[in-house]
Parts: sequence; structure tokens; C-alpha cells
Amino acid sequence: MEQVQTLIHGKSIIPVNASAENSSDKNSRLLANCSIAIQNGRILDILPISEATKKYSSESTFDYDHHIIIPGLINAHTHAAMTLFRGLANDLHLMEWLENHIWPAERKWVNEDFVQHGSQLAIAEMLRGGVTCFNDMYFFAETTAQVATKSGIRAHIGMILLDFPTQYAKDADEYFSKGLALHDQFKAHPLVKCTFAPHAPYTVSNAPLERVAMLANELELPVHMHLHETQDEIAQSIEQFKARPLQRLHNIGLVNSGLLAVHMTHLEDQEINLLAETNTNVIHCPQSNLKLASGFCPVQNLREKNINVALGTDSCASNDDQDMLSEIHSAALLAKGVANNAAALPAYDALRCATINAAIALGVDQDTGSLEIGKSADLTIIDVNTLEAQPMYDPVGHVVYATQRNQVSDVWVAGKQLLSNRKLLTLDENEILAKTKEWNQKIKN
Amino acid sequence: MEQVQTLIHGKSIIPVNASAENSSDKNSRLLANCSIAIQNGRILDILPISEATKKYSSESTFDYDHHIIIPGLINAHTHAAMTLFRGLANDLHLMEWLENHIWPAERKWVNEDFVQHGSQLAIAEMLRGGVTCFNDMYFFAETTAQVATKSGIRAHIGMILLDFPTQYAKDADEYFSKGLALHDQFKAHPLVKCTFAPHAPYTVSNAPLERVAMLANELELPVHMHLHETQDEIAQSIEQFKARPLQRLHNIGLVNSGLLAVHMTHLEDQEINLLAETNTNVIHCPQSNLKLASGFCPVQNLREKNINVALGTDSCASNDDQDMLSEIHSAALLAKGVANNAAALPAYDALRCATINAAIALGVDQDTGSLEIGKSADLTIIDVNTLEAQPMYDPVGHVVYATQRNQVSDVWVAGKQLLSNRKLLTLDENEILAKTKEWNQKIKN
Repeated sequence: MEQVQTLIHGKSIIPVNASAENSSDKNSRLLANCSIAIQNGRILDILPISEATKKYSSESTFDYDHHIIIPGLINAHTHAAMTLFRGLANDLHLMEWLENHIWPAERKWVNEDFVQHGSQLAIAEMLRGGVTCFNDMYFFAETTAQVATKSGIRAHIGMILLDFPTQYAKDADEYFSKGLALHDQFKAHPLVKCTFAPHAPYTVSNAPLERVAMLANELELPVHMHLHETQDEIAQSIEQFKARPLQRLHNIGLVNSGLLAVHMTHLEDQEINLLAETNTNVIHCPQSNLKLASGFCPVQNLREKNINVALGTDSCASNDDQDMLSEIHSAALLAKGVANNAAALPAYDALRCATINAAIALGVDQDTGSLEIGKSADLTIIDVNTLEAQPMYDPVGHVVYATQRNQVSDVWVAGKQLLSNRKLLTLDENEILAKTKEWNQKIKN
Repeated sequence: MEQVQTLIHGKSIIPVNASAENSSDKNSRLLANCSIAIQNGRILDILPISEATKKYSSESTFDYDHHIIIPGLINAHTHAAMTLFRGLANDLHLMEWLENHIWPAERKWVNEDFVQHGSQLAIAEMLRGGVTCFNDMYFFAETTAQVATKSGIRAHIGMILLDFPTQYAKDADEYFSKGLALHDQFKAHPLVKCTFAPHAPYTVSNAPLERVAMLANELELPVHMHLHETQDEIAQSIEQFKARPLQRLHNIGLVNSGLLAVHMTHLEDQEINLLAETNTNVIHCPQSNLKLASGFCPVQNLREKNINVALGTDSCASNDDQDMLSEIHSAALLAKGVANNAAALPAYDALRCATINAAIALGVDQDTGSLEIGKSADLTIIDVNTLEAQPMYDPVGHVVYATQRNQVSDVWVAGKQLLSNRKLLTLDENEILAKTKEWNQKIKN
């Protein structure tokens, strides 16, 4: 018998793999009674339990006989540290919300400590909700990177860039130098990677964007940016630049397969064609778009053009959670309403948006986003032995429409268990809760 | 000291009461450090904890010092027994879903046993999710009524009516006679009440609807009916009756303050005016409407005309849960997107839709829907001492945007505790889970 470090037996596994994708047989989307053999953090084998128990002996074995195993979920857009602002201001128009509540709170509170404790809270919440990878954009990014490293989660950390000074950096040059130092520090890290993160078309001018385009091309890094979030953003761009934001970025050379365009709620047909031709990725944040009344991302239209769509929670100031299972559910429902088509964004495709599509967008689909031999063992395990989760007729539909994050029992990243029976193994839950309450007291006074 | 049966101390209580409603001071919506004294199932007093401990001695005392207490949630539209069909068919167009999946499954499976076990499952799920009252429409209604009675939940049971025969009744006369016998049986029951439940305009013809109008008026009972759920329903009505469904019901005398019009996704301005003039109640089911791509209920427009809007989950075949906290969240988000207004359906008003508005629609607002002296002690208690529920700046917004049903720790109906630390006290969870799995096996084969 071959020795492996870990053997995971699953009653139902949804691998979201390429062969299922290319098959017309929907049954190939679900593996029943199979085992995942893990060695050195990677998936060595996936095979029927009956064969696995003959072929492999393992240092540790896990039986998930009343569970569904899915690839670890990827949160493709967030501002993790802002979890300390969860629900700070509700039911307000976007500019009132930003200018009178969020920006003043950021000016007053955001520093390294805030980012450390906020990132810890967000990562703890994400892991407990089955998220194994997140794509972040915020100040003091090196602190978020450090917290991520300690937790064992996979993280894509934005090298944030704005025109205006903040406590983090005084000008574009300082944003760039801090960002590039961060990239240099983490470039060999197996789980933490950097992206360029120019905040939005209305906060970054042409010269620094041109520099991002050049550096992103040179360093082969993704560009993570808010884009076409609101009608106002578009009107302002037309006035200032004589072009809609997408066209302006295209002129600068940023619209390509390395771009993660977040929100995209207002799109003309020719813009959808441009996204398709350039293999640009769209990051859809349905709950945030609804809460801020930003508009509806035309998910079905994008999918009809084979545009890669991934999902993000956005920050806890506009959501108010880091819950990707709920975001998948919202995305699948909203796409149907917006397209006036009950078959729009079916369950399996919604799950792809939170797994393999996000991995493709981030350029890490060789490593994660599905359960396939050779990929990193990033797994989320969902307990379905509860009243609320029974009966179950179709596990794929069940994950999307009938599952809540408190059913996530176990989580693995790169073969390392980070959540066991809902307990975090690398983060101190009580300490994080206590720190969060301290910030709550300070900020609300 | 005055002796009371139960004293409940709460750190944060949102009573959703009339005095808060009439006050311009938002702070009056939240009671901090107050006690609820309960005697004979009713709220005897609400007062500061410091006064309560001097004024009352109690047989039992409960301290909820890291919780939010809200009125018990009311699910204003469901088909409880269908919880056994949870997620039976997904991502299908409405008529394919109904004709090829739901109706055949109903013909094959629905009998008294199905309704008993399905209702038990639904009621268990609702209680664990903070729902203390539901408004039901389904076959074998007397079985659902009996299950409700045993569980201790508050229930409004529909006397279902269709033109076509089912295993439950062969014609309109038999539907009426079974329904009226049920009403007779339960008319003195403190918690279980009957409503007329003609299924929909396209399944019930004029003569039985006229009889409903007459009897509802005579017996002073509400009428619970699907209405304007889809564009097709309206087109068909115009063809068959030369009138849109709402107008047809108005001609029959059914459009009044006793009507609970469920869905209402396609409404013209003059129809909204008619609803306002007649004090008709709209029951909004956002998740079901999205999943079936039925259209968007214009919640903000209804609210601007002071139309009473309540919320329902609809059945687990189109949702796929009986989760009112999630439904409130969806309603608050979707209203903003549809109205293109981030201030539409603010948190407090969304909470009203699931409490006092529903009680008004069902004609039981003297008894429930808010925490006020003299009303029944129907309480839902939410634990906020978790990572996912911290920080918390505004408890009202928190309940709507940042709370999930697994945080519901305790539930009381008419002064009787039905859920304690997430354990059901009147229903056998293991038995219900086992029965559900049996049905799952049978139905999926």
C-alpha cells in the first residue's frame, strides 16, 4: 500500500472539474463515495472509497459521510479589514454613505492596528464560511498579507493606488513603492500573491494607470479595480475624459485577461463585446450592488458571450458579511430576475463563479478552483445532516439554494486543515471576538 | 413584590411597537436593558431591568445579555408540507417546473402522511429560524392544523379551493365542506385560525370565488390567494375574462382589507391605487419571485401609497427554505435595486413587514406582531455573541443585514418556550429528521 499524509472519504463530492465541464452528462458533476488522497498539500488521487482503502494507507483519515465536499470558495472582491465597519451605516444613498459615513470613519480609524484586527476578523469569518481564498484591496496591505500568512488562507493582496493622500501613503509614488515592496516580499510565497489594485476610474488619473498597465504586463500580475459601479461614475468620466470608464481603460491598455473588473452594473452591448474579445474578467457583487442600489450586472448577457464571471462579497460596510455561500445564492436568484429567465445562471454555473471562474480570473487555476489531481487540496466541507438541509434531491442545487454557512464544518487549504467541526485551528476565535468588541466600543462612541 | 410566571431580561429589545412607529426619534425603536414580564401567555409589563427586579418576582427568569429580542417573525405565505419537496427541481421555467416536476410529484406523493411529516419538518424549521406564526395554503389542511397545535406555533390554515379534483377533494363543494368543517373545529382555538384560500385566479372560477367573497364577509375571515404572480396569468385572464385578475376579483367583491394578495409582481399604477383605496394587503415573496423569474414586486411604490406589505417564504419547492430572516434580508436588498434607491425599504420597515404588517394582514395585530403590553408573548431571541455578528453598530440594521437564522437561540409563543438554546421543546428533532430522510429516499427513486 502507498503511504499518503491524508485521506478524505466523501459521500458526495462536487469537484467542479474540467472533465465534468466538457461532459454533457450532468451526473459527471457529482462523485459519490469517493476519496481524495492528499500528499504535500496537493491532491494525489481521487478514486472510489473502496479502491482508496486498498491502495493507500494514510497518516490521518477523515470520513465525511453526511456531507458535501466542494472546492474551497474564492471571494474575488473584498476589503477585508473593513469588516470592523460591518453595518456602520445602512439605507443611505451611495454618496451620502461614502462621504458622510465611510470616508470619515476611514480617516479617523484606519491604521495598521485596525487593518490587523479587521483582517483577522474577516479571515476568521471567511474560513468559517468555507472561503479558502480571497482577493483584497485595502490600505496597509502588508498587514493583511501577514495576517493571511499566519492563518494559512490563500490571499491575493492588492497593491492599492489612489491619487489622494491617506494615512497609508502620500502620493502615487508612495503607493507604488509600498506595493512593489510588498510584491517583492511575497513573490515566492506559495499562498499569498499580489495584484495591482488601482481603486477606481474616478480616483486614479491617467499617468499612474499607464504605469500600472506597463508594470502589470511586465510582472504578469492581475489588475483588480472597481469599474462601472454606478451611473454617476460613467457620467463623470464622459465629462472629464470624453469616454466611458471602460473605454478610457481600454485606451490605456488595461482591458485584457489580466483585468478583474469589479461590479460592471452599467454596460452597453458594445462594451460587453469588448469584454468578450479581450477575455476580461467580471467580478459580480450582487448583495453590495443591491444594498447601494448601484444597478444590476447583466450576468446572463455576459455568460452568453462566454465572459468569465466570478463573485465577491465586497466589504462588510456594504453587505454586511463575508459569506460567499449567501453570495452564490443571491447571484443565482438575481440573475434569473434580471434576465426574466428562470434558467439563467443555473446552480452549477453559480458554483463555478465562486470557484474555478475566480481562480481563472486570478490566474491561479492551475493551483486551485477545482478538485483535480495535481491541484492544491483546498476543500470546503458542508454538513447536510440537519433539519434545514433535508431532504436533498440534487446536491449541486442544494449547495446553491439550500445551504447556509453555519453548515460548513471543515476547511482545508493546501492540504492543511484550518477549520475542524467549526473550530478555527490557526486563529484564536476568542481573542478576535474580544478585539472586535474593543473596536466596536471605540468606533461607536 | 408581584408574582409573574416569566421574566425575560434583554440587553436589546426591538419591540416594533406603535409608539416607536409614531415617534420621529429613531432611538425609541430600541429598548436597552429592559425586562418583559409574562403572565398567562401575555405581556404584562415592559420596563427597565432595574425596576423589574424590584417590582416582580418570577417562577422562571431568563437573561439574554448578548442577544437581540424581536417580536416572533410571521411567515405570511407558505405551503408548509411542500418542505418535503425542498429543491426538487431547480433552474426551470415556471410552466416546465410546475407541469413536469411539481404537479406530477404532488399527484404521486401528497396524502395525509406526506402533509403530516412535511408540516412537522416545516414547523421545526420555522421555529428554529425564529418564526412564531405562519399563513399556510395546502391540501389536507386539517393535518397541518393538528401538527401546528401540537407544536405550539401560531398558524393560519388555508381552506384551500381549486376547480379541479385532487386526492384531497373532488370538487368545489368538497373543498368548501372540508374547509368549513376545519374552521368550525378550530374557531375557538387561541393559536390556530382559518383563512379562505382560493388558490389563484387561473385555478378557481367565478362561482366558487363569489361564494368565498360572501362567506369571508359573513365569517369575517381573511382571503389568502396567489395574485398577479406572472405576466402569463394576466394575459390569460384578459383573454378568458376580459379583465386583469385584480380587476376580476374586484368585480367579485374580493378586493378589500381582508385580502392577502400574494406575489403581485405585475402592477399598473391604477392597480396600485386600487390596492391603496381598498386597504388590500400585499404579501411579497422576493426569493420565490426571483427563483421562478416571476417579475419584481414594486415594494417601494406600494409603500409610498401606504399599502400594507408583509413577507412570505413561499414553499420550499421554490425558495428552498422557510427562513424569514433571509427573506427580510432579500426584501430589503431587492427593494433598493428595483427602486434604484438605496434608501428604499430601510431595515426597520423590512422588519415590520415580517412582524406587525403580517399581523395586520391576518387580522391578529391585537394579539401579536409586536412586543407591547397586553399582546401575546411571541418572542424571537437572537444571539449576537459570534464572530459573524460583531461588531454591531445598529441592532435594527444588524437584524436585517447581518443576522442568519442559526443565531436564533430561543423562541416563545404565547408565553410558552418552544426553542431553548436551539433545541426544540415540543417537537422531536431526530424523529422528524429520520422521517424526512425516509420521504427523501421514496421520492427520489
